Amino acid sequence: MADSPVMGEYFVILALENGVQVIGLTRGPETKFHHAEKLDRGEVMIAQFTDHTSAIKVRGKAVLYTKHGVVRTDDLGSGGPTAGR
Amino acid sequence: MADSPVMGEYFVILALENGVQVIGLTRGPETKFHHAEKLDRGEVMIAQFTDHTSAIKVRGKAVLYTKHGVVRTDDLGSGGPTAGR
Amino acid sequence: MADSPVMGEYFVILALENGVQVIGLTRGPETKFHHAEKLDRGEVMIAQFTDHTSAIKVRGKAVLYTKHGVVRTDDLGSGGPTAGR
Amino acid sequence: MADSPVMGEYFVILALENGVQVIGLTRGPETKFHHAEKLDRGEVMIAQFTDHTSAIKVRGKAVLYTKHGVVRTDDLGSGGPTAGR
Amino acid sequence: MADSPVMGEYFVILALENGVQVIGLTRGPETKFHHAEKLDRGEVMIAQFTDHTSAIKVRGKAVLYTKHGVVRTDDLGSGGPTAGR
Amino acid sequence: MADSPVMGEYFVILALENGVQVIGLTRGPETKFHHAEKLDRGEVMIAQFTDHTSAIKVRGKAVLYTKHGVVRTDDLGSGGPTAGR
Amino acid sequence: MADSPVMGEYFVILALENGVQVIGLTRGPETKFHHAEKLDRGEVMIAQFTDHTSAIKVRGKAVLYTKHGVVRTDDLGSGGPTAGR
Amino acid sequence: MADSPVMGEYFVILALENGVQVIGLTRGPETKFHHAEKLDRGEVMIAQFTDHTSAIKVRGKAVLYTKHGVVRTDDLGSGGPTAGR
Amino acid sequence: MADSPVMGEYFVILALENGVQVIGLTRGPETKFHHAEKLDRGEVMIAQFTDHTSAIKVRGKAVLYTKHGVVRTDDLGSGGPTAGR
Amino acid sequence: MADSPVMGEYFVILALENGVQVIGLTRGPETKFHHAEKLDRGEVMIAQFTDHTSAIKVRGKAVLYTKHGVVRTDDLGSGGPTAGR
Amino acid sequence: MADSPVMGEYFVILALENGVQVIGLTRGPETKFHHAEKLDRGEVMIAQFTDHTSAIKVRGKAVLYTKHGVVRTDDLGSGGPTAGR
Amino acid sequence: MADSPVMGEYFVILALENGVQVIGLTRGPETKFHHAEKLDRGEVMIAQFTDHTSAIKVRGKAVLYTKHGVVRTDDLGSGGPTAGR
Repeated sequence: MADSPVMGEYFVILALENGVQVIGLTRGPETKFHHAEKLDRGEVMIAQFTDHTSAIKVRGKAVLYTKHGVVRTDDLGSGGPTAGR
Repeated sequence: MADSPVMGEYFVILALENGVQVIGLTRGPETKFHHAEKLDRGEVMIAQFTDHTSAIKVRGKAVLYTKHGVVRTDDLGSGGPTAGR
Repeated sequence: MADSPVMGEYFVILALENGVQVIGLTRGPETKFHHAEKLDRGEVMIAQFTDHTSAIKVRGKAVLYTKHGVVRTDDLGSGGPTAGR
Repeated sequence: MADSPVMGEYFVILALENGVQVIGLTRGPETKFHHAEKLDRGEVMIAQFTDHTSAIKVRGKAVLYTKHGVVRTDDLGSGGPTAGR
Repeated sequence: MADSPVMGEYFVILALENGVQVIGLTRGPETKFHHAEKLDRGEVMIAQFTDHTSAIKVRGKAVLYTKHGVVRTDDLGSGGPTAGR
Repeated sequence: MADSPVMGEYFVILALENGVQVIGLTRGPETKFHHAEKLDRGEVMIAQFTDHTSAIKVRGKAVLYTKHGVVRTDDLGSGGPTAGR
Repeated sequence: MADSPVMGEYFVILALENGVQVIGLTRGPETKFHHAEKLDRGEVMIAQFTDHTSAIKVRGKAVLYTKHGVVRTDDLGSGGPTAGR
Repeated sequence: MADSPVMGEYFVILALENGVQVIGLTRGPETKFHHAEKLDRGEVMIAQFTDHTSAIKVRGKAVLYTKHGVVRTDDLGSGGPTAGR
Repeated sequence: MADSPVMGEYFVILALENGVQVIGLTRGPETKFHHAEKLDRGEVMIAQFTDHTSAIKVRGKAVLYTKHGVVRTDDLGSGGPTAGR
Repeated sequence: MADSPVMGEYFVILALENGVQVIGLTRGPETKFHHAEKLDRGEVMIAQFTDHTSAIKVRGKAVLYTKHGVVRTDDLGSGGPTAGR
Repeated sequence: MADSPVMGEYFVILALENGVQVIGLTRGPETKFHHAEKLDRGEVMIAQFTDHTSAIKVRGKAVLYTKHGVVRTDDLGSGGPTAGR
Repeated sequence: MADSPVMGEYFVILALENGVQVIGLTRGPETKFHHAEKLDRGEVMIAQFTDHTSAIKVRGKAVLYTKHGVVRTDDLGSGGPTAGR
């Protein structure tokens, strides 16, 4: 296995409630679910893109920290979400 | 499979309503739909370009976080959208 | 297929009206239309340059987010467009 | 075909009137016209330099967005053009 | 073994209570737990992504220092977490 | 033909009068004119250095946009030109 | 042995009390302790990630200087730690 | 011929009077004049270093735009030249 | 011997009292002391990580200048050390 | 001949008096004069380091523009030279 | 001999008194003195790390200019040294 | 001979008095003087590190312009030298 995967982009997910799901989607020609991780309130996941995962989906109240800003999934109200950057 | 795909550009999509569609278009000589992912209100997708996907289309109210700014699809009014950067 | 295409430049197109066309032009010795994608009001496309596409043309009211600024196609009036950067 | 062309420099052209011409000039030992694209008012073209095109010429009222600034072709008056950067 | 792993991204975890768990998830086609490290209040772990670990999960009150900001897992109240950056 | 030429430096020339000449000089051991392009008032040329061109000469009133600043050829008066950067 | 390890990331640990432990964890498929270094009050360790160490654990009152900020392990009170950056 | 020469450093010379000379000096073991280009008032030359030219000499009133600043050759008075940067 | 070691990270140690020890720890599978250098008050050492040294330990009052800030080992009082950066 | 020399560092020399000498010193095991160029008042030389030249010496009143600042050779008075940067 | 050593890190040492010693320590498995250079008051040495030298020691009153700041060896008083950066 | 030496680090030395010596020290296993250049008041030398020179020593009143700041050798008084950066 080559070394460069350790340099892949990563992001951080902080669960704001129990049962937040972080679902990995496959990189290959077919985009399928291949793994789902559950996070409870206050749990954090730090994850990279890998040879097997090119997309993730997050379900439930959470805060995502990414290179394009901080994304909250529980604040979609009147003013809507804003990018903290 | 080579390693470098893990370094590909990524962007973040936050759904503001149920049924937001994130549609992958193929990279090859023909540009076709190859996958559609549905996001419900408050769900988030973090996705990379891949060997199979060179474009995506988003349908429904959503906020996109990209390296060129934050794009809202639900605020096309008089003043129109503005790039939060 | 090599990996590096996933690193290609990308841009974002937000349709401000129905029927916005995003037309791909071929990279080869002849510059021809090879694909046209229609976007309705509020739809967004995130697209990379690829081995097959070295230029795109946008028809209809839209906002383009690029590394050289934000370009609106519906504001060509007296003061003319300005680059929001 | 190698992959790196997708990383080539690009620029954006916004037509301010009908019939703006974007003319590609060949890269080879002879500099010849090889393609002309017409843009109508409000149309936009995003184009890269390619293995076949090392220069382009723009005729008609337009705004160009480049890494050296924003260039307007319709404002050559007393004060002359200024680079918005 | 190649050298480049020493260049991998790293992050810092500071435990705010006893029994904070730092759980490594495998990089391979299957995402499984492969190691769990316990941190007591005031202990710190500095960890890289590796050939074997592409994600980690943190359980318990802690502060994470990452390239996307500082994440606290114990402050999910009214105002919610904020990214100190 | 290798790919990297598409990454070459480019500059922008905006003609302020009819008949502006953009003259390409050869890269080889002998420096000779190999091509001259005429620009009329308001026309723009975006050009790269290439395997065949390592210098260009501009004759006539024009504005050049380069990485070292904006150069006007029609303002050589008392105060002289200034670099807008 | 290849040369690049000398370019690996490093961090600095300053002990604030006697008996601070800096524990190296192995990079391989199994994450095990492979070395523990003791620091007394006022002693400093500057350490790189290596082919053998992909994580370290610090026990005892100390200040860590890392690329994500300065981390104190002895100030977990009401306001909690803050990242000095 | 290899491609990288197109990436070479370039500079811009604006003639402030007729008969400004831009003289290329050879790169080889002997430093000799190999080409002289004449610029008239208001003419501009954009030139790269090449496999054949590693130095140029400018004679006559001109403004040079380089990565180390803007150099005027006609303002050597009391205060002397200043680098506009 | 390859050349790249000369590019390794370095840091600076200034002794504030006699007998400051700078102790090199081995890079290999075993972490052992392999060299100790004594610095007297006012002496300075500038040292790189090498193929043989992946960590150093400093004993005694000193100031360390590193890429993560300036670290003093003699100021651990009430307010504690601060990173001068 | 390889291509990369065109990327070499360069500097600019503006002569403030007649007879300024720019003297090239050889790169080889022996450091010898290999070329001297004379500049008259107002003449400018832009020169790269080359495979044959690793040092130059300037005699006479001149201004040098380098990446470390602007150096005047005629202002060594009380306050001495200052680096304009 | 390979070329890259010329790119190695360097630092500057200015002697504030006669007899300042700059002592080179060997890079190899054993760390030994291999060279000592004496500087008198006002003399300066600019030195790179090399294939043979991975550390230097400075004895005597001097100022060191490094990428981590300016270090004075003669000002260890009450307030202690400060990093001028 | 390879090309990269032209990319080596350089520095600038301005002599403030007659007879300033710039002494090159050899890169090899032995550090010896291999060349001394004399500069008179107002003369400047721009020099790179080379395959043969890894250190230089400057004797006499001079100003050095380096990437770590500007170093004057004639101002070692009460306040001592300061780094102009």
